[in-house]
Parts: sequence; C-alpha cells; structure tokens
Amino acid sequence: MTAGSGDVTMYDCWLGYRRAGPEAVVAGSGDVLSRVAVSGASAVLRTALAELVRGLSALTGRVPAVVPEQTAGPLVLIAAPRSAAGAHALTTMTRTRGPADGEDEVIVMTALARPGQVVLTSNTEAGCLHAVFAFLRRLQAGQAPAGLHVADGTASRLRMVSHWDNLDGTIERGYAGASIFFKDGQVTQDLHRVRDYARLLASVGVNAVCVNNVNVTAEAARLLTAAHLPRLARLAGIFRDHGIRLFLSVSFDSPMILSGIRAADPLDPQVRDWWRSQAGQVYAHIPDLGGFQVKADSESRPGPSVYGRSQADGANVIADALRPFGGVVLWRAFVYDCWQDWRDRSTDRARACYDTFMPLDGAFGENVIVQAKLGPMDFQVREPPSPLLTALRLTSAAIEVQITQEYTGQQKDLCFLHPQWHEVMNGRAVVDGDVTTLAHVVSGHKTGRPNGGVTGVVNVGDDPSWTGHVLAQANLYAFGRLAWDPGIDPGTVAAEWVTATFGAAEPVASTVTRMLLDSWRVYESYTAPLGVGWMVTPGTHYGPSVDGYEYSRWGTYHFADREGIGVDRTAATGTGFTAQYEPGQARMYEDIGSCPDELLLFFHHVPYRHRLKSGKTVIQHIYDSHFDGAEDARRMLRDWLSLAGHLDPVRFEQVRSRLELQVANAKEWRDVVNSYFFRKSGIGDELGRKIF
Amino acid sequence: MTAGSGDVTMYDCWLGYRRAGPEAVVAGSGDVLSRVAVSGASAVLRTALAELVRGLSALTGRVPAVVPEQTAGPLVLIAAPRSAAGAHALTTMTRTRGPADGEDEVIVMTALARPGQVVLTSNTEAGCLHAVFAFLRRLQAGQAPAGLHVADGTASRLRMVSHWDNLDGTIERGYAGASIFFKDGQVTQDLHRVRDYARLLASVGVNAVCVNNVNVTAEAARLLTAAHLPRLARLAGIFRDHGIRLFLSVSFDSPMILSGIRAADPLDPQVRDWWRSQAGQVYAHIPDLGGFQVKADSESRPGPSVYGRSQADGANVIADALRPFGGVVLWRAFVYDCWQDWRDRSTDRARACYDTFMPLDGAFGENVIVQAKLGPMDFQVREPPSPLLTALRLTSAAIEVQITQEYTGQQKDLCFLHPQWHEVMNGRAVVDGDVTTLAHVVSGHKTGRPNGGVTGVVNVGDDPSWTGHVLAQANLYAFGRLAWDPGIDPGTVAAEWVTATFGAAEPVASTVTRMLLDSWRVYESYTAPLGVGWMVTPGTHYGPSVDGYEYSRWGTYHFADREGIGVDRTAATGTGFTAQYEPGQARMYEDIGSCPDELLLFFHHVPYRHRLKSGKTVIQHIYDSHFDGAEDARRMLRDWLSLAGHLDPVRFEQVRSRLELQVANAKEWRDVVNSYFFRKSGIGDELGRKIF
Repeated sequence: MTAGSGDVTMYDCWLGYRRAGPEAVVAGSGDVLSRVAVSGASAVLRTALAELVRGLSALTGRVPAVVPEQTAGPLVLIAAPRSAAGAHALTTMTRTRGPADGEDEVIVMTALARPGQVVLTSNTEAGCLHAVFAFLRRLQAGQAPAGLHVADGTASRLRMVSHWDNLDGTIERGYAGASIFFKDGQVTQDLHRVRDYARLLASVGVNAVCVNNVNVTAEAARLLTAAHLPRLARLAGIFRDHGIRLFLSVSFDSPMILSGIRAADPLDPQVRDWWRSQAGQVYAHIPDLGGFQVKADSESRPGPSVYGRSQADGANVIADALRPFGGVVLWRAFVYDCWQDWRDRSTDRARACYDTFMPLDGAFGENVIVQAKLGPMDFQVREPPSPLLTALRLTSAAIEVQITQEYTGQQKDLCFLHPQWHEVMNGRAVVDGDVTTLAHVVSGHKTGRPNGGVTGVVNVGDDPSWTGHVLAQANLYAFGRLAWDPGIDPGTVAAEWVTATFGAAEPVASTVTRMLLDSWRVYESYTAPLGVGWMVTPGTHYGPSVDGYEYSRWGTYHFADREGIGVDRTAATGTGFTAQYEPGQARMYEDIGSCPDELLLFFHHVPYRHRLKSGKTVIQHIYDSHFDGAEDARRMLRDWLSLAGHLDPVRFEQVRSRLELQVANAKEWRDVVNSYFFRKSGIGDELGRKIF
Repeated sequence: MTAGSGDVTMYDCWLGYRRAGPEAVVAGSGDVLSRVAVSGASAVLRTALAELVRGLSALTGRVPAVVPEQTAGPLVLIAAPRSAAGAHALTTMTRTRGPADGEDEVIVMTALARPGQVVLTSNTEAGCLHAVFAFLRRLQAGQAPAGLHVADGTASRLRMVSHWDNLDGTIERGYAGASIFFKDGQVTQDLHRVRDYARLLASVGVNAVCVNNVNVTAEAARLLTAAHLPRLARLAGIFRDHGIRLFLSVSFDSPMILSGIRAADPLDPQVRDWWRSQAGQVYAHIPDLGGFQVKADSESRPGPSVYGRSQADGANVIADALRPFGGVVLWRAFVYDCWQDWRDRSTDRARACYDTFMPLDGAFGENVIVQAKLGPMDFQVREPPSPLLTALRLTSAAIEVQITQEYTGQQKDLCFLHPQWHEVMNGRAVVDGDVTTLAHVVSGHKTGRPNGGVTGVVNVGDDPSWTGHVLAQANLYAFGRLAWDPGIDPGTVAAEWVTATFGAAEPVASTVTRMLLDSWRVYESYTAPLGVGWMVTPGTHYGPSVDGYEYSRWGTYHFADREGIGVDRTAATGTGFTAQYEPGQARMYEDIGSCPDELLLFFHHVPYRHRLKSGKTVIQHIYDSHFDGAEDARRMLRDWLSLAGHLDPVRFEQVRSRLELQVANAKEWRDVVNSYFFRKSGIGDELGRKIF
C-alpha cells in the first residue's frame, strides 16, 4: 500500500505524505511506527486509525500492523477520550502544562505516558483524529516520535468553513470551478470528493461546514425539506465521520417560502411554531446538525426589520427552535444600508455593524452566535479590526474571514492571507481593564459565551487543485491552523504547508515560503492604497476601477479630489467611527499622528503632500508602492520560474500561468492608479517614472 | 367592422386609426371613401387593399365596399404599377413635378387623374402599399381627399431595420422584452405578432428586415441550414406580403461552423464554393431573400484579417455567392481595435473605419454595401458624421443608426432621435466640387452605386408597447420616415406621429410633440458633455460612470485631468482624424475657433476655463447643462402629468413610470458628472449650486 507516497498531485493538497523529508526520522524510530492500535470503536476513531495507517504507510514505506490496544511494546496508540490510556495521558499533560483556561479541545501526543509507545489522544473524539493529523505532520516535518510530548489546545469552539455554493452548482465569489456539493438543483450523489474534502478539513481541525450560500434563494430554501434532506444527511454522515458538523444557510423568509404563512414576523406565534416544527423535521434527518447560518436584513435579503423587529428578535426565534436539538444560529452581522446615497457624507457604512448590534448585546439567545466580518467593511486587503468583535460582552461571537480571494486576487493573484488574519486576531482588546487579543475575546471564554469562534468563506470548488491556484491551498490550510490557534505564526504555518505540499527540499521550500509570506504585502502595494480600500471593478471585484464604487450606493468611497484623499472617520470632525473602539485604540486611530500609515486613508482625509511616518508623501507613496508592487509581481514570477525542474510539471505550470496573470493585473493596477492620481493631483513622480 | 376605431392600445402604435381628428374631413368627402378598388392581384396589392378597407372603416365608421376597378363614380383606386390607371397617374405627376433624379420608389396620391376618384399608385407594388398608408395618414391628419395631388419619392433603395435578436429569445441591447422572432433556439411559430410588425414597418416604408443579431453565435450560424430555413421562409413570406425583404446576419466563419472546412479564407476556392452552394440552399427556401449582413473583424468576431485578406476580399466572396440570386451583402464597417491599450495615445478609434475602408473604395463587388455607423465611434448621443460615408465614391454605402437607445436612455429615458439623425444626414458633403448632403451621397445615385441606403438597429421586442416606452415608438416611426426622406423635418414627423398615436386634440398633441422634440437636447445636456461621449456604466451603458471606459481597451477616452478635458484629434497636434473629412469640414473641425461647441471635446483637448462660443467656460457649461438637464427631465415629467385625464390610463402610466426613472437618472448623471469635474478641476459653480 503506497497511497499518497507516489506522485503527489494538485488534488492531494498538503496530504500527499511525501517520504522525502523524514526518512532519517523514520529510520531512527525503531519499531514504534510499525504497529498501531486504537482504544475505542466510534466512526471518528475508525477514521483516525485509517488515517494513521495511511500516513505511516506512505511516510515509512511499510504498512503498519493494527494490533489490540493492550499490546505491549512499541506502537502508536489512538486513545479514546474516556479510555484509561487517554485519561492518563491527558492527566499527565495537564500536570505538566498546568490547566489551560477555557480550552475547548486539547490534543495530546506523548511518548512519555507509556514507555516505548506513542499515545495520541484528546478530550474529544474529533480531537483524536486531529491528534493523528498533527502527529503525521510532525513526523513529516522531521520530528522523532521518541521524546514527543505535546499538548495543544484550542479555545475556538467553532471552526467553520462556509460555502457560498448555489444549487445550480455555481459558487458566488468562487474561483475554483463548480460546487462539490450541488449540481443541477440537487445535492450531489458523488460522495467521493466530499469524503476527500472532509479529510482535508479534519486535517487542519475544522469542525463545521456550512454547505450552501448565505444568499438563500427560494430554491435553496427548500433544502430544509424532505426533497433534499435525505441527501444532505449523507453529506452530514461523511462529515460526522471526520468530526465535522454540517450547517445549513437558511432564508429568514423560509416560513413564507415553504408554507402558506403570509409573513415571517419573528414574534408571530405561527412563525415561531413553524420554525420549531421545521427544525424537528431537519433534525429527524440530521440529528447532529450544527445549526443554521442566516444572512438577514443584509444586501436586500429578508429579515426582521421588515416587521419592525430587532436583529435579536430575528435570531432568537430560529435559535429557540434549534435549542432542543443542540443547534446554534450563526447570525451574520453584515447589516448595512446598501442603498446609501453617495451624496450623504454623514452615513458611514463602517459604523453600521456596531451601531446595529452593540445595543442588542445581551438580547441574543444563548445559542445565537453573532458572526461579524474581520473588518468593518467587507474583506478588503486592509481593514482595521471590527470594533464590534472586541466590544460584545454578553453574546457569543464569531469572526468571519474570507478564504476565497474575492477582493484579493481571485486565485489568479497570489495572496496568502494568514498574515492579515493573524494581525487582526491578535490585535488589542481590553476586557475589564485587562489587555488581551481580539481572538481571546471572540473565543468567549473570558465573557462566558463560548459558542463562537472562527468562520471562513472557503475557496474550494471542483477544480483539480480544489482552489484554482495551487498556492491558494495554503489559505485553506492556514485558515484551519488559525482557527485552532489564532496566535500561531504565519511563518510557521507557511513552512508547514510548503513542507507538506512540496517537501522540505531546497530551493523549493524557502522560495515558496518566501513567496507566500510576501504576497499579501505585494497585493496590497499595487491595489488600493493606505487602507482606503475598494477601487475594484464593480461587480467582478477583479482589476482596478478607482472611481468604480465612488458614486455608488454601496457606502464605499475614497473622496479623492484634486487636493487629497481619504475618509474622515474621526470623532472630532468625521463620522465618529473611531469612537466605536475602546479608548486606547480610539485614540490611536483618531490622532493622525498615531494612526498607522497602512490605515491612514481609512480614518483620515489628507492632502496628497501629507507626509507619512515613512517619511514619504501620500502621493509619492502611491507611486512608489505601485511601481514596486508591479515589480514584485514580476519578481515572484521569476522566483517561481527558477524552480523549473524542481517541481512536477502540472503544479509548476498551473502556478506559472496564474503568476503571469498576476503580472498583467499588477501592471494594470499600477498604471491606472498612478494615472488616476497624477491626473487628479497634478503632482509628478519624484523619480520621473512613466505615468500615463 | 370597427378594427382600430375602438380603444387605441399601446400595441396599436401609430396605426390605431382614431376617428377623433378628421371627422369633418370625412364628412366632407362625399362618397369617395365609401368604395375602394384595386387594379392588380398580387399579395402586396391584396395587403394594400385590406389596409385601405381597415383604415377607412376605422376613420369613417363605415366599411367601404370593394368594387371592380373599372367602376365609375367616387372611389379610391389602388392602381398597380403597370396598370393603365397607375401609369396615367404616374405620368401626370411626373409632368407636374418634373423628373426626379435617382428616385428608387415614387408614390402617388392624386384626385386629379380620374375625376371623382382618388388614385393611389407607385412605380413598385410595395409603393402601392406605402401609398395607402400615406393616404390614410393624410386623411387622419385632416387633409381632404378632394384636390389631393401628391407625389413623393425616395432615393434610398435600402430602408432596413436590423434586429440584434438571439435564438434564445434575448435581444442584445434590447429594452423592450424578448424577441418576436426567436424563442428557445427556434424561429417562432407564433406569426400573429410578426404580421402586425410587418404592417408597422410597411406603414413607414421600411422595405428590409434583418431578423438576427449581427453577433452570430455558432448556434445562430445554423439559421442557414434546413434546420431553420422552412420557418424562416414563413417569416419571409409574411414580410414579402408587406413589400419587405428578409435579410440574415451570417458569421464569416460559417464554412467552418457548418461544414468540415478548416479555415474560412475568402480566397480559398473551397470556401468560395461553400458560400455558393450554401446560398443556393438558402435561396431555394427564400427566393427573394435580400441578402446577408456581416459583422466581421469587429469586436472579436471572425473575419478575413485572420487570413491576411482585406475587408473587400471578405465581402466579395459572400457577395459573389449571392449575386446570381439578386442578393446583396451588407458589410459592416465597424472595424476597430477593441483591444487597444489605453496608454497608447497615438491610436484613435475614430480613425479606424475610414483608415480601413477608404483604401478599398472600388475593390468591393457591385452587390456589396458597406454599412457604416452614423458617427466614427458608436451611437453616442453626439458624434460628428462618419467621414467614410461622404468619402466613398465607388462603393454602395448604407448609414446605420441605432433606433434602440443603447447609449441614449434605453427606453427608460425619453430621447427622440430623429433630430440627431436629421442633422447628420443633412450634413455637408462635397462630390466633384458640388456641395450636397451626406444622405445624398449615401443614396449612391450621385456616384452610381445606388444599392445602399439607411439601416437602423431596431428597438422592438415582445413588450405590449413593442418598444418598452410608448414614446419610443416615435423613434421607429421616425426611422422609417427618415429612411424614406432624409430631408424631412423632425418637427413634421413628430407631429405626424403624435397625431396618429394620440390624436390631434390639445393639450396632448402640442405637449407630446414638444417633449419629443426637446428630448434629445435634454438627454445630451445631462450626460457626457460637448461631444466627448461615453462616461456610461461599462457593460450596461445606462447611467453615469465618468471614468468607466477611461482606462479600458475600447478606445473611448476623455483624458480629463485637473487642467482640462477632451481628445485632440486635430491634424496639427493630435491624432489627425480631422484630415479624414473633405477640406471644408476638416478646417472647421481642426480650428478650435470654428469647431462647433457641441463637438468641441470630440476634436480638442481644452482647459476647463476655455471659453465656448456660447460665452461660457467649459466647466461652467458642464455645470449649467447638467443642472438644466436634470431640471428639464423634471419638467418633462410635470408636462406629462399635466395630461392626466386626457390619455388612456395604460399609456399614461407606462410613460409616467418611465419619466420618473428618467428624473432619477438625470439627477444621478448631474451629480456624478458635476462632482467628478468639481473634484478634478477645483473650480466652483458660478451660481453656487450644490455639488458633492
């Protein structure tokens, strides 16, 4: 059996289990990798055992023997949570590390608990599977099993990927082919790929998947009915075997769409009864459904405001229906006026989320999770953190990031997003006077509302590489790692992914790692400057259109005129958005002297000759960053081309072709943005470079 | 029988034959309108007789008796071209008027040729039908039949409407519902509406209709095959009965799409043979097919340039195949580089048509008609005339206008286009030192290449009003009248249309006529200023986006910067486009002192403070025209609302709802354009009005 040990393909992603790196380790491991055992008999544990066999077979070149759990001598034991070996290992580790506050799941890998053996365990069954993947990852990275003694916990109860997949197979903001879940209006019966996908997700600790688009059509609302539930239950079963719960996006208007009810008023007893009854039908098919995700009162989706009801009223009626079954409601906080008049400078879309939800803190049911995007706008390449996420005290919250690169290159341009996510997740938050991180607040352990966590709009479709761009697989990988541990360093994660995907050999490993870690900065440098965002082609969101959203209804403006640019969001003279932050952050953003350069135009309107902390003027920064960014894109292509011969031709060519698109895109951004600002400001480039 | 005499509906258009106006006339006509006869027996003459009966029935309230042609006493006689009565009337009129040079069709209405009778005749059978419609129009407008003595001729051999209808029923740039010809990939079998449409076209003298989109898909290329020809032949038959010939748009790649031929090289004998053979098959089904329309080497359509062949080579191979059957090729001259780099200021799309086709003057077969758009760009609200159309000497030409309002309000905004067409058609042209009009040159009688004429991309779909906006019916009406007589005054035509559509009663008649005649100026005033064009939302072409096409590949730029705006197309310092005109016009456009204000920015790049002949600066003109235009839109709505109670509610409401859309659109244009230029120029409005 050599599954995964042969040619690694795009399809394998980071689970190709290449032998290249750890041969010395394997050779030095004695017999411990030649035998495996499991204590326990659940489906997830069976999955864990199968993965352990598959991984060790590939990495060692020998299929390990599966032996009874009580077998003495060298072996790797997967110990169920409540097994004696598991409990012992957990206890030992807890003693060693000290009790970790508020950890939802802990995985343990230890060679010390049972001499000559490696025990993989967790406080949850899914954790045992996660421990297996973590163990294989460490082996592959060169760590010897002897002496292994690791406990790793996560505070994120929810670690979810969300698909914007439509029933016709299209994917909203998808750049990697068609849906792997839906086709021609039906749930797929091709479960092979679903199974492989569940494995990918489990390998990075993802424990929830929402399979359908948050923009729920009338057709998709019917997913809650017997027309689709049996097939959805099959999907749920596959995910269940991998420790992952299925979620569904539902329409707030479901009672109207699916029954004769005339209105979806959340306080109407008829509506309440309908949700209860419908939840019962759904849970009859999928007893462990995670719950529902709801985009309500957002971008023309129906919601409680139609009936004069609050967001809490809307969320609670659905949450009440799910509570008896252990389900939760993910209620999206992406509520703003998408019919804003661009002439109206007093309305600030950035304020909308906090203004709408903060007054309702405490009004949401216990099994409601308010899900807010990373920043106050919409997944731009640079945004300040959402002030709502650090402010909620009485509400479970989830932070939503976008793994699919809607505004960040659409899997044509390389943009490894972990550095952005990491920066925001580890940004300052203050709770009861204690300074902590946004991620810590969101986890809810500090505030006693721990249902939330991290969600990501995923970048996966039926493309042979899953993500349309081989290097975009790293974003999916990093999302899982970040959701598990918001503090983990992007450099560590990039190196992990590169090693698992391409092997540890040079020059590939360091070149690709460097490309990944540089790519967010590069993408930012040739697109919208200094945090102001947008400037994308309306509709598609790929390529430059500086004024594309400037005179539109979307609340997305830069206010560039011949004198300057930027949005005054200060409390003193602007929209007052800065006041939504805790005082320390508020002061930092409010004061032009302390506001970080990279967010200057998000918070302030300044003259083109305003001097940044970097010493450059704003206009010269625009020119320099755009010339540099386009050059950096060319350099990344050259770096990749230098790897010719070191990579399999399929992955090499796919990435090469996309980097060429990126070079063209970066050039277009450079010239359009520079020309726009030169024509508007009349200020020439200090270096006299060509502007059109 | 009261067909048309009851409630007039949107569907009736200008053929509702209302009794309101001409009752006195009818009452004073004695018995002449009570009996009708026809000399001749063709299908077109039968159509003419039926229309005469229908019209007189409605207008007089009595069904006229159809009597033998030789009947003595009062009657209206439709006299076939070669009948004794027809020949006599034609001769009499020719004696009266003197011979008219180069007239393709002459219609005669005379009460003098046969005492007590009105003779309607023509030199063609279609002309007899046209004479009937003209007679009914005059009756309706209040003209008494006694004393009628009119001959009216046209120099336009081709008077064609062109449908951009796709086989799936959609219409490219259609704003009036779905296709009346195609549905679900098939030619329609619902011929009722086709018949009514043929009647509408015949009523204004249109004699050709091209039913499918010039952008021919592989699917639509199959229209030339037996899969579709039988049904197309039924359409052709209906049109034939109305004196109208059917045309088809074909793909230059047809030999490749429909047969195994590997290339469509026009000089390849195999390709030549294929076109001949295929033409034979088509003509076997439709013996009087007008011919083919071809969009080649244009906006990514295939064409002869692929094989290094000229436009003439491409046109001639198809024309040769059609010649034996009397067919012509309409070869579109809309050839330009639609992948232009916006950075490249030396390339000027306006030049492309002339540069490509003028060197080929004389190389086109006799049955090729080179079809050029009215202006050098693409149906903008204001363009100078196409220099090619006045320059060709050895080629039949057609001028193409756009009846469908792609860039002129999309049948939401009112824009009666006849004034624009009239201005261009009657613009200066010089042939052999004689000053004449563009229309006269295009007719070809001066140059001995008289196959051409006037074509229009039509605005018709399956909307209940045909055109989506009741008042946009006037554009279809005016197109026919203009094609017949390019010199006819738009005021006359507007009044004709209003009377036929709504009756002659006040306040409706003068209010609607004024709205029509004012509407082009109003639309221009609130959109792109001073001839520079574009500034529309990319893709949809509705609503403002000043920079929407500025950094694009389409060759459509305004070059606005903080100092000024406009395209330098002079020979002295610009792209040299002005030199494509005959010397008189060239000088006028070249000299900023003589270039008309309304085209200033088409030909010159000027500072915002440049003073127009009007005395205003360019920037103040922009502000004034946009404030005025938005106010004028509101005024048009008020004018319409003042007609409440004077109009049937269906038409009243439809137009009202569209005028409200126009008011909103005009406001958006006003504010976006003014804000854009204020932000860029920094120059305030002299009147201090609100700019954002």
